[in-house]
Amino acid sequence: MGSPLGCGWESEGLLVQPLPTIDAHTRALNQGSPLIIIGGAEDKEREKSILKAFLARAGGSEARLLLVPSASSMPEILAEVYRLLFVQLGAASVEVLNITNRFEAELDENVARLHNSTGLFMTGGDQVRLCKLVAGTALARAMQQASTAGRLVIAGTSAGASAMGECMIARGYSGEPPKRNIVELSEGLGLLKDVIVDQHFHNRNRLPRLMTAVASQPHCIGIGIDENTAVVLHGDGILEVIGEGTVTVVDGSELVYNTINDIQSYQPLSVGNFRIAVMAQGLRYNLRERQTL
Amino acid sequence: MGSPLGCGWESEGLLVQPLPTIDAHTRALNQGSPLIIIGGAEDKEREKSILKAFLARAGGSEARLLLVPSASSMPEILAEVYRLLFVQLGAASVEVLNITNRFEAELDENVARLHNSTGLFMTGGDQVRLCKLVAGTALARAMQQASTAGRLVIAGTSAGASAMGECMIARGYSGEPPKRNIVELSEGLGLLKDVIVDQHFHNRNRLPRLMTAVASQPHCIGIGIDENTAVVLHGDGILEVIGEGTVTVVDGSELVYNTINDIQSYQPLSVGNFRIAVMAQGLRYNLRERQTL
Repeated sequence: MGSPLGCGWESEGLLVQPLPTIDAHTRALNQGSPLIIIGGAEDKEREKSILKAFLARAGGSEARLLLVPSASSMPEILAEVYRLLFVQLGAASVEVLNITNRFEAELDENVARLHNSTGLFMTGGDQVRLCKLVAGTALARAMQQASTAGRLVIAGTSAGASAMGECMIARGYSGEPPKRNIVELSEGLGLLKDVIVDQHFHNRNRLPRLMTAVASQPHCIGIGIDENTAVVLHGDGILEVIGEGTVTVVDGSELVYNTINDIQSYQPLSVGNFRIAVMAQGLRYNLRERQTL
Repeated sequence: MGSPLGCGWESEGLLVQPLPTIDAHTRALNQGSPLIIIGGAEDKEREKSILKAFLARAGGSEARLLLVPSASSMPEILAEVYRLLFVQLGAASVEVLNITNRFEAELDENVARLHNSTGLFMTGGDQVRLCKLVAGTALARAMQQASTAGRLVIAGTSAGASAMGECMIARGYSGEPPKRNIVELSEGLGLLKDVIVDQHFHNRNRLPRLMTAVASQPHCIGIGIDENTAVVLHGDGILEVIGEGTVTVVDGSELVYNTINDIQSYQPLSVGNFRIAVMAQGLRYNLRERQTL
């Protein structure tokens, strides 16, 4: 644990009772273009409403899409699945950028391909694999800059969603109460500040691990996204829910106790009080004010 | 759904935006003797700390225990397991009261056996089975009265824990976001007012169903208890956590929105903000004030 971004257990001086006041206003999150953060298993066969929502925001019939399948162990196959989908949905062009080593993620020609695109889509797989290849590279910086400048709509599903954060959930376990060893944090792509994303959320019993992650980084807000569900995060910090399931927001800004730095990693955690909101399609949430709209 | 106690979806006039103010002070919960509410799978082989805690409060070496295994489909076997355990732990006497029909739960001689006891232990199984046999009978009333009068320490594990509430979770599902059809509520034994108990809690991914139950009955507070973990609920409404896991308190008294009565049972629920506390051994919570101590 521990990373250059201070994402890890050891690097924070949390706990203590009473807890320090958390600034309930998160830092500027993304700015500029919306981010589309998808909880995995997005419907690819029927309505395809989430994929359509991404495509519409990335330019619709004018969209020039770039697919990044590098989280996957079968990147070519997965890229072809999404390529066909977006072609059928009417994108002007759909290209694949399959980064297989960090050198490729530093190449000017690959950065240039990103600058020629209006939308970038990161597939599922393993977020650690994706970030080992891309985090901290010229490509990652170009993604951040193009998004902030309002020139690139970025979407990610499953691992591609988790990877968006500055701090991300690398791995975790379910079926246990909150304790340090049920979640491992690492450095993500940095598109989202002060936000920790989790996916396949209620489907895979991930609320305890997201609560644990927020307990360890209480300046961050946790966002758990169900399958077939997505967050459209606008540049002003307004989160909008679309799809069939729910988005769960875990806000630790009012924690009154938190034993995460007092206990061994295998011991159960005491932490309260979280403020937890569950939101279905149509609800919106202001991440800066930490309030439902 | 729907019951004489108003426990059910149809019987409440919840929702509406803004929500009515919930009285954050629960009704008198139990009074008198402590209740020992166990999340299932309590350690029977090693430390046996939860069983010892019950025995100590029920009189220790002076304890006259009554086992009620009626939730189980194998009541004789389960009763014998616990009988041997409590005999080995030093109880003065351990008897079995296996109610198999409601007639037996009305018999004076069975009520008299309860009045001769200092502790009563309800096993796991199916809480619906137990309540069909016992809820609303002379035996259930005698349990309530003896507990309130401080003459009987009542413990229940798993189904025996869920059954304690006036309103109980009869059945539920996991792996889905909160929606009405992931939990079914029915009438319990009535030992606990304004409290909904859930068990095997983080082990079986039950936080979404407990949040849903509290969304439907927001005057109730939800208590989710992990395996090998118990709540000692004192007569003054102070809850104390013992055991290896955690107890999760779901407080809906500050909900700002709740769509439970606006949606179909299969649609995902929007509800926020819950206040959620996770507590390991040693932490205490005041159910009347809804505050950690």
